[in-house]
Amino acid sequence: MFKVLRLGFVAGVGISGWVGGGIYERRRREHREHQEHIHREHRDIRDYEMLGRIPGLPLGPKVSAATAIVPAGERGVAVADIPPEPVNAPRVAQIMRFGFPGLDHVRSHADYVLSYDRRNRVPHWVFEHLTKDSIQKSEGVERSNSEFKEDTSIHEFFRAKNSDYKHSGYDRGHMAPAGNHRRNQNMCDETFYLSNMAPQVGKGFNRDKWEHLERYARKLTKLYKNVYICTGPLYLPRKEASDGKMYVKYEVIGANNVSVPTHFFKVIVGETEDHQLELEAYVLPNQVIPDETPLNNFQVPVDSVERAAGLLFFDRLSRDKLSKINGKKIGWF
Amino acid sequence: MFKVLRLGFVAGVGISGWVGGGIYERRRREHREHQEHIHREHRDIRDYEMLGRIPGLPLGPKVSAATAIVPAGERGVAVADIPPEPVNAPRVAQIMRFGFPGLDHVRSHADYVLSYDRRNRVPHWVFEHLTKDSIQKSEGVERSNSEFKEDTSIHEFFRAKNSDYKHSGYDRGHMAPAGNHRRNQNMCDETFYLSNMAPQVGKGFNRDKWEHLERYARKLTKLYKNVYICTGPLYLPRKEASDGKMYVKYEVIGANNVSVPTHFFKVIVGETEDHQLELEAYVLPNQVIPDETPLNNFQVPVDSVERAAGLLFFDRLSRDKLSKINGKKIGWF
Repeated sequence: MFKVLRLGFVAGVGISGWVGGGIYERRRREHREHQEHIHREHRDIRDYEMLGRIPGLPLGPKVSAATAIVPAGERGVAVADIPPEPVNAPRVAQIMRFGFPGLDHVRSHADYVLSYDRRNRVPHWVFEHLTKDSIQKSEGVERSNSEFKEDTSIHEFFRAKNSDYKHSGYDRGHMAPAGNHRRNQNMCDETFYLSNMAPQVGKGFNRDKWEHLERYARKLTKLYKNVYICTGPLYLPRKEASDGKMYVKYEVIGANNVSVPTHFFKVIVGETEDHQLELEAYVLPNQVIPDETPLNNFQVPVDSVERAAGLLFFDRLSRDKLSKINGKKIGWF
Repeated sequence: MFKVLRLGFVAGVGISGWVGGGIYERRRREHREHQEHIHREHRDIRDYEMLGRIPGLPLGPKVSAATAIVPAGERGVAVADIPPEPVNAPRVAQIMRFGFPGLDHVRSHADYVLSYDRRNRVPHWVFEHLTKDSIQKSEGVERSNSEFKEDTSIHEFFRAKNSDYKHSGYDRGHMAPAGNHRRNQNMCDETFYLSNMAPQVGKGFNRDKWEHLERYARKLTKLYKNVYICTGPLYLPRKEASDGKMYVKYEVIGANNVSVPTHFFKVIVGETEDHQLELEAYVLPNQVIPDETPLNNFQVPVDSVERAAGLLFFDRLSRDKLSKINGKKIGWF
């Protein structure tokens, strides 16, 4: 009958997969030993009758090959206890302490982790772990020293470019904000990969209400010892008056068809000094939002974001371990 | 700087990961040992001001938790030689001989492999391996004995249901067709999981030109010793006359917002008895297509499908090892 693929050692399912990083390193080595290189030759493919007739099918030169892999199953389970704060573990283990919200083309940067959506050329989700210390700005670190740049680790077929955003009318909107990563210039620079961007309305959104939410999340480090943040795009359907049916509709920009999400989410878990865990979930439309709109107007049930995003947030953390959701005590109705 | 996540042993990158299945089984065991169960309690979350105001954000009851994981990086590499036909290997290794086209929520069935798109509630891609023998219909196996059924291995948040399709006007269109899997009733039944379906226009498409393509692919087993097929949905942008901008637009159906793809692709690699490899790539619009339209009108360059789907097909097979693409000899221009 049905068999969930478990071709890989599933790190993060158990705690032991995280702590120490020894297993992690060994698997990397095993993996590397399996790798060999290939050079796909550039091939012209001509004379396709249908070519001009299929709308939206991208055409472009063939480039060198990249790849894929690591299938995994959707676990129907999680752990009963709160995963302890990883000690002496790699940064990725700290950031991802409560589990991955999805499984994809994952990039682990010095201070954030990202899953890339190759079809939409924007992130699926971005994960951050903030503390009072981690958000400190070191002397000389400036966002003005950083440049928006292509992420060459993404296969060229799926890579967003600066030219895609140019003249589009949209900002290159950070998912992991530069302002959260200023301990050194490299950390700041890494937030400027275009793989960490999605097209956002500039004035009234990216530079205003969305930035307001980012500042709010950063300030939570005053309340909490640990702040974990998952951020990403949404493509929400709406009913069309003409036929009463539901449609997802979003613009794509540039030669690489970079998707313009309709909304963005931010799901935050804060941990107090005495290990109380509190969750907040926000969804903001990618449009001009009046400055006077309070942020908590955008709070939503976390499971509605999960359904819409196709993700499960903090899935290693049982919801009944939370003491508050969106500012409301739970278990005390 | 940047670090590609390699948290897992990456099977399929090298050949040794496939053959025998011993490693596969061991990893499964290791994984199982890490699993513990959790019971997320149903929580009412009330009183969200914004709730009614965000279009398309799905609201529904909280159900038991499931999960995610196995991060992996996009490999910038592949192997130089044609991967040999796996001997004494699990079925999944045979079907996936040339590499996975993407990385996601993968399901390995008795006779096909599927990657599920949790956001769209349809497959990302489905992989099949056909031979003269594998497509034989055994006595008593009937598709009329099979029933369309929910795939309970998919978390309820992301699961398509029969009720979603009812009264939608769309067929439940198989990605891995039942007609390719009739050696036993179980194999046939497994193609009826709704995780293997996408909404397709019925008359003029699913029951006609698309079925025509499926029959054509099946008949290729007369020409080739091995036929490998990757099938999946596309969401192609088109230019809107009103503002000259490009938009992706597609309907979603039912309470679970199952996406109706604008197009479908099928990429086929056939291997002759003397190991010649030939590739064909098709994209068909999800609409009524006149019966008289020849199938090769829908042939497209494979890399245009890759760009549109966010996938890399047969990436363990160097393109310069192919003797034909879409019926044209290559290397002989």
